[in-house]
Amino acid sequence: MPRSLLRRPSSSLLAIAIQLASAFSTFSPPPSSSSPLAPATAAASPPPTIIMTDDDVDVVAASASNDDDDDDDVPGDGDGSSDFPPPRDRSSDLLIDGWFHERNDLWPGQAFALKVKEVLYHKRSRFQDVLVFDSESYGRVLVLDGVIQATERDEHSYSEMMAHLPLYSHPNPEKVLVIGGGDGGVLREVARHPSVSEIVICELDADVISVSRRYLPSMAVGFDDPRVRINVMDGARFMDENRGAFDVIITDSSDPVGPASVLFETPFYRAMHGSLRPGGIVCTQGECLWLHLDLIRPLISAITPLFRTVEYAYTTIPSYPSGQIGFVIATKAGEERDGDTNEEDYDNKRQKTEDAGRDGCGGDGGGGCKVPRRVPDEEEARRLRYYTPEVHRAAFVLPAFARRAIFGE
Amino acid sequence: MPRSLLRRPSSSLLAIAIQLASAFSTFSPPPSSSSPLAPATAAASPPPTIIMTDDDVDVVAASASNDDDDDDDVPGDGDGSSDFPPPRDRSSDLLIDGWFHERNDLWPGQAFALKVKEVLYHKRSRFQDVLVFDSESYGRVLVLDGVIQATERDEHSYSEMMAHLPLYSHPNPEKVLVIGGGDGGVLREVARHPSVSEIVICELDADVISVSRRYLPSMAVGFDDPRVRINVMDGARFMDENRGAFDVIITDSSDPVGPASVLFETPFYRAMHGSLRPGGIVCTQGECLWLHLDLIRPLISAITPLFRTVEYAYTTIPSYPSGQIGFVIATKAGEERDGDTNEEDYDNKRQKTEDAGRDGCGGDGGGGCKVPRRVPDEEEARRLRYYTPEVHRAAFVLPAFARRAIFGE
Repeated sequence: MPRSLLRRPSSSLLAIAIQLASAFSTFSPPPSSSSPLAPATAAASPPPTIIMTDDDVDVVAASASNDDDDDDDVPGDGDGSSDFPPPRDRSSDLLIDGWFHERNDLWPGQAFALKVKEVLYHKRSRFQDVLVFDSESYGRVLVLDGVIQATERDEHSYSEMMAHLPLYSHPNPEKVLVIGGGDGGVLREVARHPSVSEIVICELDADVISVSRRYLPSMAVGFDDPRVRINVMDGARFMDENRGAFDVIITDSSDPVGPASVLFETPFYRAMHGSLRPGGIVCTQGECLWLHLDLIRPLISAITPLFRTVEYAYTTIPSYPSGQIGFVIATKAGEERDGDTNEEDYDNKRQKTEDAGRDGCGGDGGGGCKVPRRVPDEEEARRLRYYTPEVHRAAFVLPAFARRAIFGE
Repeated sequence: MPRSLLRRPSSSLLAIAIQLASAFSTFSPPPSSSSPLAPATAAASPPPTIIMTDDDVDVVAASASNDDDDDDDVPGDGDGSSDFPPPRDRSSDLLIDGWFHERNDLWPGQAFALKVKEVLYHKRSRFQDVLVFDSESYGRVLVLDGVIQATERDEHSYSEMMAHLPLYSHPNPEKVLVIGGGDGGVLREVARHPSVSEIVICELDADVISVSRRYLPSMAVGFDDPRVRINVMDGARFMDENRGAFDVIITDSSDPVGPASVLFETPFYRAMHGSLRPGGIVCTQGECLWLHLDLIRPLISAITPLFRTVEYAYTTIPSYPSGQIGFVIATKAGEERDGDTNEEDYDNKRQKTEDAGRDGCGGDGGGGCKVPRRVPDEEEARRLRYYTPEVHRAAFVLPAFARRAIFGE
């Protein structure tokens, strides 16, 4: 769940442009992981189109220099300065005795640990502590500010669910915005949908992109799709400037501490709502129902008036705290969503939905996202490792304690 | 998932009888946990009926002495001897720097860790290393041979699902056998079903029962139900002597290493099948689909010819490896299972089941357990913390990679 930081001081634009320029310099892809579960490394393909919609970028981009050095020198400002205060737990403090221990005040008293084979990269970007290591049994691992963001072994669960829950809930997604998501895994999944004509990503930390392209090619392959356009900028600002533009907005963020906390507040959801087309869908990283009900409940309450439907789903993923992570999924009212091209098919689906709702497994009589409106074709289904239409529906079925806490049922 | 060890040399019977006698000595219940999620400590109630069906027990029970000393002296043979070789990872090796690290060759390269507030009990029983500690954020924790078996914070997920998946799938469960389950959590859940007239538990290690009664009263309350009868003996032998006797058999075992490995082999399933009434259901601890597909797949294949249906479900539980654990659930053919008293109701349910099957969420057109045949009444539903009828159905929906690996779909 790579982070997007919303409040970036404009003084950092030059550095960002430099970072961005070298994010697509000619890195040689590393050998693919030894993990038996790691996906095959994608074939080399041309770098994506880069859009710089930030006002200042045209100027600074001209003076950006390429950095062709591929010897462990993924670009950063290098002076140790930061736009945000350093986190309490730096990754180096968590590398103990050959293991990485994910200790954090967000999950006090518990920690997932991975045995480290080799640290491949460890530097502080302008925004955060960036660590990549090769693990004994989870392939390569990306860690930001001491928190595991993705491992080659299980990222597919998160990436597939975060992309396909909203995309298969939409009858015809064309324009998709990803906020955060700098490792590329979610992009890779969005790109599986042939109806999608444009995929815009707003990731503030260009180092995450460059590090992922270098060390995590099975995820960063997502950047290689020709429909992908990259903004290194503030996602909220981009949305303000692009209202009513997207069918699906996915926020692949880090945890709600420090600057990322705004991603869990109502104004950010209002911005997403404004940037959606009628009938559009947002899907955001929604923390863990075993750990953060006190965060999830007020968020759901606060944003419910904004959207037509607000729902919560989750996926299992061993390398995230408590072994799972949730998604807040909300739909915007709109005639497009109500008017399927195939009326009969829609009526059938709605009937099924209502039946399912009565029967208690993933019904969404209210027009939400609990029942997919499209399904992967046979070939695509074979490629997916976690998502199925059945998993889609089951993902919305919450344990009693969580359903009570979040929805009062 | 307290263990039941099947092959117990008869020479250990005296020690077991002694252990058993003191398992129900007058321990004062400890103060209830400080965890906000920990259940309330149950009111004191009389100790359960104890059945000793083992041939030798009548003799040795007469010479068993009570041990009223409640000063950290839960009984064991105390000489450090064991009927099985000591495990490679002793709990003491895993208590490092104030944390308990659950490192184990069954999940190489990964480890869940809990911060320890205080070690409350740590001794070797005749069969295994038994550790109880008070954790910073998971309440009290039971550890056997270095593997977390239950925490006060999340055991309800496992205990509820392990009991209610088979019990709510059965139209009228009367006699229930629990193999293992010495902490009492599963018994507590089985006892919620008013149709059940008899609950027999076969747990080989009496120390687990006594330690749980002393330190984990919210689980051990399960022993207090007057319908519970305890056998400290070999579960397979008990089943051989009680054929066609049970509506539901639950195996709440530890992991398949050492002596417990027989619980994951075909002869044990054959024994369970033999001990079921027609139409009966077994539910066994089925390891984790993120870790042990190479164990689950051949097990499912091997036992499929024995039963009418064989299915796999899972539940989320943060303190188990990779954050979840599975259940193998199998039904025995039988006219009882096909002949509900309420034919109309049955037909309705079957139709719903088939609809659900087509729709892809937990259908079981083949008469399995994917759709509950009964549901908790309103009062009971309010007491349950994890299980709902919706959760029941969703539990059988497996991620694509697991469905392919286990069922070849």
